[in-house]
Formats: sequence, structure tokens, C-alpha cells
Amino acid sequence: MVVRSGPLLAPRLGLGGWSAGPPVSAPEDTAPPATLAVMRVEDLGTPAALVDLEVVERNASRMSEKASSLGVRLRPHVKTHKTIEAARLQVGGHFGGITVSTLAEAAFFAAGGFRDITYAVPIVPAKLAAAARLSQQLDRISVLLDDPAAADAVEVCAREHGIRFSVFLKVDCGGRRAGVDPERDGIVALAGRLAASPHIDFRGILTHAGQSYRCRGRDEIRAVAAHERDVMVVLAARLRDAGVPVEEVSIGSTPTLAVAEDLAGITEVRPGNYVFFDATQVAIGSCALEDVAFTVLVRVIGRYPRRRELLVDGGALALSKDPGPLHVVPECGFGIVLDVRGVPIEHLRVVSLSQEHGVVRSARDLRPGEFPIGSLLRAVPNHSCLAAALFDRYAVLRGADVVGEWHPVRGW
Amino acid sequence: MVVRSGPLLAPRLGLGGWSAGPPVSAPEDTAPPATLAVMRVEDLGTPAALVDLEVVERNASRMSEKASSLGVRLRPHVKTHKTIEAARLQVGGHFGGITVSTLAEAAFFAAGGFRDITYAVPIVPAKLAAAARLSQQLDRISVLLDDPAAADAVEVCAREHGIRFSVFLKVDCGGRRAGVDPERDGIVALAGRLAASPHIDFRGILTHAGQSYRCRGRDEIRAVAAHERDVMVVLAARLRDAGVPVEEVSIGSTPTLAVAEDLAGITEVRPGNYVFFDATQVAIGSCALEDVAFTVLVRVIGRYPRRRELLVDGGALALSKDPGPLHVVPECGFGIVLDVRGVPIEHLRVVSLSQEHGVVRSARDLRPGEFPIGSLLRAVPNHSCLAAALFDRYAVLRGADVVGEWHPVRGW
Repeated sequence: MVVRSGPLLAPRLGLGGWSAGPPVSAPEDTAPPATLAVMRVEDLGTPAALVDLEVVERNASRMSEKASSLGVRLRPHVKTHKTIEAARLQVGGHFGGITVSTLAEAAFFAAGGFRDITYAVPIVPAKLAAAARLSQQLDRISVLLDDPAAADAVEVCAREHGIRFSVFLKVDCGGRRAGVDPERDGIVALAGRLAASPHIDFRGILTHAGQSYRCRGRDEIRAVAAHERDVMVVLAARLRDAGVPVEEVSIGSTPTLAVAEDLAGITEVRPGNYVFFDATQVAIGSCALEDVAFTVLVRVIGRYPRRRELLVDGGALALSKDPGPLHVVPECGFGIVLDVRGVPIEHLRVVSLSQEHGVVRSARDLRPGEFPIGSLLRAVPNHSCLAAALFDRYAVLRGADVVGEWHPVRGW
Repeated sequence: MVVRSGPLLAPRLGLGGWSAGPPVSAPEDTAPPATLAVMRVEDLGTPAALVDLEVVERNASRMSEKASSLGVRLRPHVKTHKTIEAARLQVGGHFGGITVSTLAEAAFFAAGGFRDITYAVPIVPAKLAAAARLSQQLDRISVLLDDPAAADAVEVCAREHGIRFSVFLKVDCGGRRAGVDPERDGIVALAGRLAASPHIDFRGILTHAGQSYRCRGRDEIRAVAAHERDVMVVLAARLRDAGVPVEEVSIGSTPTLAVAEDLAGITEVRPGNYVFFDATQVAIGSCALEDVAFTVLVRVIGRYPRRRELLVDGGALALSKDPGPLHVVPECGFGIVLDVRGVPIEHLRVVSLSQEHGVVRSARDLRPGEFPIGSLLRAVPNHSCLAAALFDRYAVLRGADVVGEWHPVRGW
């Protein structure tokens, strides 16, 4: 695709900011040059975050169709990309609600027109006032908690602000991170208390099967997905039997959604990583390599043929030091390597990272002249959520053309 | 210390940006409240990056004195903190030159008044134009290279811009990252070519003993430090014997400087991490825990006494997923835990991280009411360079008072 908006394109894309790149010029195979200002992936400074727009669109559309076919509402998580543009693609065809991981995201997406936001990290007293203020700009902001002390604080804050807080009870379905143990007796009392509070709009129960990331393939993910669903459906029934109304039964992780076939009893799903995917999702079986939409463009800055290594300018501050799917691919290193057009180079791997250096090792001898100083590669990071958060902007590609620039929110 | 600048303090510190924190108010033990606007560490939103100013000053001063006593010039690396304020503390008493890891840092510090900057990542053709532009604002910007192809590009760019590039030859003293092998014959020819070029001001040789981070204590670091020095001194002599002038012999890593006692033959050192230090430096023996100036303030957002765990709101986007000194402390996890005033809590460790969640595990049972929801802890990250880069600002502390806010540069 050629963008025929020459004079306007540079400011719109903020090309000046890609400071290390050479001047923008039309590729040789297009004409007339005077009317074109197409930036190509080769023109970008490095390291650069690349988003393949067609892949994002396909990933968003597939998840949307999957949620519809399973009869659940899609409330996508936006923490992986943190951009308005990707969130709009995610909610297409659904009710428009989203899930966020920080109050900074909540404020950013509220300003971007999103009206129904779940802040999916356990709330603490010090963050309630900000959430209360946001609630006045939104149709709904929901918080979650798993502790009576947090419930106390929610009630106090709601009274002080003259509002009712939407609250989910966070449930641990085996991830052993946040959430109440669904087997414990206290859970009915806590849910009942939330449902009875005049200061709380009790929404229901919510979980995240984080253990799915530790699976070794789709069969294991299927078992985790079935457990996630069953724990929540059984708990919802138990609470309802005890007289506690449970409107929402919310689950969500990209791996468990990737294999889900029957979500009877579930009302809402909250996957997020599927927009970009990454090397971990490929390794555990959530997606294929061609489904990965986020890569990091790097340049070769050193060549060491004797040790079969290249040095690239994507280090830990571009790829993140997430150790990746070591349980599936012990030699995974820190990234799968592609050529500049996105074709896998199977004999290369990013094997180590320091702050601004990445070491790429080849499984075979480097040929003379192969991967010279300055040549471009792309790396698929182990964990796109962490790598994307390291960039202030993403270059949005259609094929090899840079067709836009997205600016994620950051901070808390 | 009490800052008596009430009306001015809030805007100066950008307090509005610490959005999750409660309103600023005077602590109860100070009076009269109307004239004070002292922010305390307890008032900050979380997660927050904390810099203990007295520790930074002490670390900077010690390294400065050490360089002076060893008879070498200090050209500190600024990549750990990326702030003008810390860099000014680092160069105190020295000639003012600094080392950077990105061209964005070079531009930022140039704008901040620094005049002599070494960009210590191998240069590539696509970055030369930006370096050339910067050279016109500075007394000197030095680049480094280890490949004849990069030397070709430097000459072309220098000719095009009508300048001479200051160039270091990067040497590998055993880190096996960047640099020419000092044993290879080609090194004399490459150095000679740089020295003979009319477009290049050949500065000398430069190395970084990155392998020092893999040491298991000060004895091993001493061996690496001696090797780093000896490789460089021998190479400088070999080049000089071959008629190649070598003005600078530049080394630098925080661990090797921490143990250095004799740097005869070395002209310049470039440590950086020592300003902040971190859990890795403590483990390998570069410093004591009380020398660590950078911590991350987090709140307890979940309590799970049955599994002896707390959940905190400092995840991988606040602490980074650097695996830390596993070779010294196999159970290091992702952070040492301190109380809000900086006192170590030895039975707690950050044991796992996801994007916005940190799991803290206790070596003993949690007592009832201990570490309640909302309570504050501080975490010493494994690698302060990577953790600091995740924050847009640092809260600068003297004791428990917030006395300033520093804004690091980011990106490339």
C-alpha cells in the first residue's frame, strides 16, 4: 500500500522522531517520487517497535468471532498494547467494555471514549479516590478485591464520594497470584457482604488462569481452560444457592481462550495478549508464528563470525528480559529472529541481552558478507506485553509500508 | 529535612502526577501546617521509583575520589539513571565528560550542558548522521567501532558533513559482547587505519569487562579487573610499538572499579551503575546493601497467609524481569524487600513478577495484621539500570522527605 499524502505524512507519522533513520524517500519502484512520501520499514531508526496492522486486525477479528460463537461478551484487556487504536479494533462488534491494568490506562482510555472499564488488579485504599473520580466520567468503572480490608476501604470511599462502586470478587482458579481460594468457607460471606452493601454494585466473580502460561501445549491448556471454567461455574452456583446474586462470571487469558470450545455458564472473557501474541504464545501453542503482530526492528551493530554471533541494537530495553517459555523451549533465549520483511531466519536466535545490546547466535557458520553491519532484522520478543511497554510509539505497518504511528500510555 | 516552600513545592514536584497518592498534607509531627507542604515517601502513589539522594551523593563522591586517587579520569556512564541531576553529581571534581548508551541520551545531555560525550555502543551507518549533527553542538562526541565496515561508514559520513569523527576502537577483554579480539592480527591494521584517516580523530582503545557481572565475589572480580587492565595496557603498548598513537585507554564497569587498586596505563574509567547500585551488585560484592540508592515503592494489594505470600503492585513493569545474580544467590527472585524507611525485611523476597503484580514470599508465617492491604514496602531490583528505565520520573528522597523529582530521558 502506498500512502499518497506526501506533505502531510511526515508530521502525521512524527517521522522526525525516528531520529536515527535516514531521510524519508520514495522507494525506487514507485513513481513519480515528487508526489510520494512513503516510509518503509527499512527507513526506520532502530530499535523500533513494529505492529503489523493486518495481523492485529485478523487477531482481533478472530477473537471477536470466537467470543460471539461461544456466547460470551468480549471485554478485551488492553494492557498488551495500551493504545486507543488497537483497543478500538478489539471491541469491534462487541459492547465496548475493556479491561485495564493501571489507573493511568483507565484515565487514558476514558479520555479516548471508552465508557465501561474494569481495572483488573486488586484495589487498595490509596487508589480508590482516583477510581472514584474516574467513575464520574464513565458509565462504569469496576474494581476487584479479594480481602475484607479492601471491601472496608471501598465502602468508606464510596460513602465519601457519594457513589456506588462496581466490584468484582477476584477468585484464584489455580494461578496462585491474586484471588480468594474458591474452596474456602469465607468466600460466601465475603461475596454476600459485597452484594448486601449499599455502597457497592456487586458485579460477580472474576478470575485469570495465569497458570496457562506454564503449559506445554494445547492439551495442557485445554485442561487449565476447563478447570478455569468449572471453578467459576461451580462457585457461581454455590454463591447463588447461598442467595448471593452473581451477574457476571468473568474469565480470561489468551491461552485458555485459544482452546476454549464450551463456555456455558461464563458471561464474559478478558483476553489481551492475542492482539500481538509473542514467542511464548507460539511455544505453548496459543498461536502460530505468523499470528505474531508485534516485532522489534533492530540493526546489526557487530559481526563475530568466529563465534557465530551478531550484535544487534535491541537490548533488554527493547525486548525485555522476560525469560520466555523455558519450560517448552529450553534454548529459547530472548527472541525469535526474522528478516526485515518478517520471514523467519531459523538458524538465528537472540541468546543474550544487556541494556542496549542483543547477542544473536547462528546455528551454522555465518557466510562471508551475510548480515553485514547496519543490516536489519526483526525480533519476536518472548513477552510482547513487556517489550511493547518499553516503547513510546509503535510504527504501524501494512506489509513493508509504515502507515501510522500509535502512542501507548505508560506509567500508573 | 523540611522543605519550607509550600505553595511552590507542589508544582515543582509535579505532585499532581503522583495520581494514586492521597492529597499532600503536612505530617502530624510538623507545625504549623499552613506553612508546610512536605511530601513524605508515604504520600507517594505506587509503584514509584525512589532515589535516596544522600546515597547517590555518597556513591558519586566515593567513585570520584577513587578515580582521582588511581590517577585516571572519570567519564561516568549515565545510562543507569539518565538524568541531568545525577550526571552532575557524577562529574563533580572531574573534567565533565560522560558516557551514554543511546543517541537520545547524547542529545538530552548535550541540551543539559554536557560538552564531551562518548556514545559507547558500536556505531552503525544509519546513526552517523545524527551523531554528526550532535558533534556540531559539542566539544566532542566520540563513537566506537570494531569493524572495518563501520570505519568505512564513519569516513563517508565525516566527509559528507565536513567534520572529523572522534573514534574509539572497541576491544573485547573477555565479555564476548562487542569488540575486536585483542589477540587477532587485524587489530593493528584496523587501529592504524583509524589513526591514519584524515576524517577520524582516533582517540584510543576502549573496553567493558561485562563478565565481571558473572563473578561470585570480590576475589573473582579482582581477577577480571586485572585482566581488563592488562589486556588494555598490553594492547596499547602493542599498537604504540606499531606506530599507532593511543591517547586514551578506557575501561569501565562498576564491579571492576569497585575493586581496582592499580590502574597504571589506564587513562579513563567509565563506571555507571555505582550511582544507584542494585541487588546484583550487592550479591557479587561490589557494594553493601546500604549503598543501594534506587528502590521501588510498592503497596501490598493482596495477603495470602496460608501460602506465606503478599501481592504487591510492583510487577515486571516496575522492577524488570532481570533474573538477577542467580549464580551467587540461586533463590534471589526479583528483589530484596525493605520497609518503607529502607530497613531490610530479611524474611521477605519478591519471588515472581507478572506485568503489574509482584509476589512477595515470607520465610516464616505472616503474623495476623502484619503487612495489611495498602501497606508500603520498598523493593531493591536486581538490575537498577533496567528498573529505572521503566519510570518517567524518580521521587528524590532525603530520609523520608520527598525533596525533588528527576525526569530521565528514554528511547533511542
